[in-house]
Amino acid sequence: MNEPRRKRGAERTSNRGPAAIPQLPLRRVTNPYPPMAMLSVDQVETIHQASMHILENFGIEVMSQRALALFEKAGAKVDHATANVRIDRGLVAEALKTTQSSYRLTPRNPANTIHLGGNTINFTLVAGPPNVHDMERGRRAGNLHDYADLTRLAQHFNCIHMLGNQVCAPVELPANTRHMDTYFTNLTLTDKSFHVSAIGRGRALDGIEMMAIARGLTLDEMRDDPGIATIISVNSPRRFDEMMAEGLMTMAEFGQSVAVTPFTLMGAMSPVTLAGALAQQNAEALFGVVLTQLVRPGAPVMYGAFTSNVDMKSGAPAFGTPENTKANIASGQLARRYNLPYRTTPGSASNAADAQGAYETLMALWGAVLGHGNLVYHAAGWQEGGLTASFEKLIIDVEMIQHMMEFLRPIVVDEAELAVEALGAVPTGGHFFGEPHTLERYATAFYQPMLSNWQNYEAWQEAGGLDTTARATRLWKKALEDYVEPVMDIAVREALEAYVARRKEAIGQGEP
Amino acid sequence: MNEPRRKRGAERTSNRGPAAIPQLPLRRVTNPYPPMAMLSVDQVETIHQASMHILENFGIEVMSQRALALFEKAGAKVDHATANVRIDRGLVAEALKTTQSSYRLTPRNPANTIHLGGNTINFTLVAGPPNVHDMERGRRAGNLHDYADLTRLAQHFNCIHMLGNQVCAPVELPANTRHMDTYFTNLTLTDKSFHVSAIGRGRALDGIEMMAIARGLTLDEMRDDPGIATIISVNSPRRFDEMMAEGLMTMAEFGQSVAVTPFTLMGAMSPVTLAGALAQQNAEALFGVVLTQLVRPGAPVMYGAFTSNVDMKSGAPAFGTPENTKANIASGQLARRYNLPYRTTPGSASNAADAQGAYETLMALWGAVLGHGNLVYHAAGWQEGGLTASFEKLIIDVEMIQHMMEFLRPIVVDEAELAVEALGAVPTGGHFFGEPHTLERYATAFYQPMLSNWQNYEAWQEAGGLDTTARATRLWKKALEDYVEPVMDIAVREALEAYVARRKEAIGQGEP
Repeated sequence: MNEPRRKRGAERTSNRGPAAIPQLPLRRVTNPYPPMAMLSVDQVETIHQASMHILENFGIEVMSQRALALFEKAGAKVDHATANVRIDRGLVAEALKTTQSSYRLTPRNPANTIHLGGNTINFTLVAGPPNVHDMERGRRAGNLHDYADLTRLAQHFNCIHMLGNQVCAPVELPANTRHMDTYFTNLTLTDKSFHVSAIGRGRALDGIEMMAIARGLTLDEMRDDPGIATIISVNSPRRFDEMMAEGLMTMAEFGQSVAVTPFTLMGAMSPVTLAGALAQQNAEALFGVVLTQLVRPGAPVMYGAFTSNVDMKSGAPAFGTPENTKANIASGQLARRYNLPYRTTPGSASNAADAQGAYETLMALWGAVLGHGNLVYHAAGWQEGGLTASFEKLIIDVEMIQHMMEFLRPIVVDEAELAVEALGAVPTGGHFFGEPHTLERYATAFYQPMLSNWQNYEAWQEAGGLDTTARATRLWKKALEDYVEPVMDIAVREALEAYVARRKEAIGQGEP
Repeated sequence: MNEPRRKRGAERTSNRGPAAIPQLPLRRVTNPYPPMAMLSVDQVETIHQASMHILENFGIEVMSQRALALFEKAGAKVDHATANVRIDRGLVAEALKTTQSSYRLTPRNPANTIHLGGNTINFTLVAGPPNVHDMERGRRAGNLHDYADLTRLAQHFNCIHMLGNQVCAPVELPANTRHMDTYFTNLTLTDKSFHVSAIGRGRALDGIEMMAIARGLTLDEMRDDPGIATIISVNSPRRFDEMMAEGLMTMAEFGQSVAVTPFTLMGAMSPVTLAGALAQQNAEALFGVVLTQLVRPGAPVMYGAFTSNVDMKSGAPAFGTPENTKANIASGQLARRYNLPYRTTPGSASNAADAQGAYETLMALWGAVLGHGNLVYHAAGWQEGGLTASFEKLIIDVEMIQHMMEFLRPIVVDEAELAVEALGAVPTGGHFFGEPHTLERYATAFYQPMLSNWQNYEAWQEAGGLDTTARATRLWKKALEDYVEPVMDIAVREALEAYVARRKEAIGQGEP
């Protein structure tokens, strides 16, 4: 709240460098190609059957009386001694009758509306790291100052469509109220949608209330016109803890988006085999989906997937592996089997914003895109397996996301693009630099990267010989200079401040 | 020839580190998924028609009397004043009746046979850079010592199926005979197939002769059982120079593989539009294909593609761009329209073995794989847009290639892989580490990278905090230590030495 306020809209031009960082304009990204079919239709069905077997015979533990009551009322077999819930495929099918195959999330600026479903792809900022890193200041615990800067970067770069939940944990703030400081930062420094913390009812409800204030809506109005989202992580295998169950139910009750996401690390929380991990993921995700519909039929819910593997030598989680990439594609097939929007994730275990960080992330990002992910969570800034939000990695990720966005623009084949006249006009062994066909198009013909350096070696050396990571440092600093805080009505801002103050007072030393 | 000879087969175990670098075993890589359809069938046809228009109306300049005579005899319209050749679609169709949709290249070790066509993917070492770079010794001109070391790395890593033509130029050697020094190095330090220099008849023929000696075959025997290949670069737009035309005809005459590869840099040697560049590429590639069949019907020939774009601010070539990635996929569709094996290329303009080097290369590599490239040329070691062979980049590329190889292994869905029993046995919130299902499989369940570091931050820091590039330095040094020179019969080696000596004597100061 006491963060120095950067340039507002009115001061747009002050202190900005001579040339803005080139970036793609804000646009809705769609994937015009069919999703990759990594599993056959029969294989999808076999995995479905296995997951139904899990739900019907093994059950899921739900550490919430309210959830147990809902399941019991719906006809599930509830063992109150163990909090185990077995549901049959009929109940799953019933729930899937009321889920939505696509829906929108509208933040305070409707230009940043998120479309979840169909062929649309949205990319979010990394969420949840306890640490922050950049090449100048090194590694440090998450804090609100860095939180604000990383949030500004998400606002600055058009390809980041939405924020995750807490780009880093501001650990200097009280754990029971810091969620509101992060929501306030999200709402004032950006005009994009964001994910709330659904650790219990209070944190979710605060996010819903604050987005409603920012949009000038009542909770009832926002129930049918959602603006925020959350990720409900499953305590795999087969457990929803009380806080996450309460968070899920609160979001569903108020009509906000939930992505039910089992964290199925093969070899640790899941079988060591992809088929087994996918069956488990499918069972757990569908179980959460059912719960949203028991709370409120039609509640917006996504199929979340985060299946990767561990290093079997150490047990350490790995990301961006071939197995993770395959899971990202196969999980999309499962999500589509149920007509659910699909949340997926790229990632890397690299401790640095280096080549490994790039190739692991890009492997899994291709999986996310070929699998037709609708929400590509943790897409920018993820480092150290999610334990650190990296400023440089964020820039590298933005560059890779933009590469994918441009890749997804279809090839146009028509008379103008075929350039037959130019092909006849340029002599053999000649060049096209001066052709009218070239001159008319050259300024926008190709994607212009922000980070890639295409100088020859000598020119690059003369300019300092900076590698990609070092250039990324310059870029995030420049982006922070160029950042423009979106205008917010002062009355809205004051209402948000008042809400936070009132709630902090009410919460005191207790739980939200 | 005077390179210190490293450990031969008999000394396999000496001087090797305690643990070999983990790597995938030698295997034929196949892509089990359908190629990506980036162009519609109609679009492919439209590009085909445009390229036929180019061949029929604009023609191709061929700076070779022998080639002109062949085309004239086949009914092409030859303008001898300009060396321009116009061929009609009937001649193209006729040639495509005798091309092969797939064929094999057999080196001296048949275990390293290359399958070109169908769903098989082969990866080659970078070819042609004038410079070499590693992080310890910096950048330097190509030389035979580095040539030998890079060649040893290609032999060491199973995923490099074949050598390109000259991993670096050994510029200290006479230009008119150095090709033989490189062939000798290829043949003695590896037992894999390689590309020869087809700059004129002599260089091609020397490669053919030397491979025949190494295999113990006559030229006639090898004509029907090819062992080597070449890339014929087109001087785009629309020109085949004399040396390349002679090289192409020599290879075809002796039944060795030719990949006709226009270098269609959009905005420079080609229109600024993808459709136009693809039409030009298609015309030029097919023209070369026709010439191979005029020389010898049935001669093994590939459809080569290398369409990328320039930086329109500087004219510098760029690689691994979104446009390059799309071209790699679309070109595969064109190659398959003609039932020709497909040569494609990843690449990067980065001056360092860094994040840009990784993400640009991996973008284009995905294009190569989704486009069902059969020969992924320049796949390992390419840096600076091909002007430098980098030791560290080679390691990064090997890691990325192995990621793709593992990605291409299909997901198995059966009772054992579904692990339903284990899923029922592990309690909710438990873990799978100790499950029999896990223990039976964990050692080989996941791809084990050679370069990626999955340690946590603290352990990584304690171990020196090396980034990916620094770890790559260690790995190429270790790989050179572990390298084992493949056994060669002394009589064969002496025959090769004698051939080279005799030819050097004969060539003298002249041209080969």
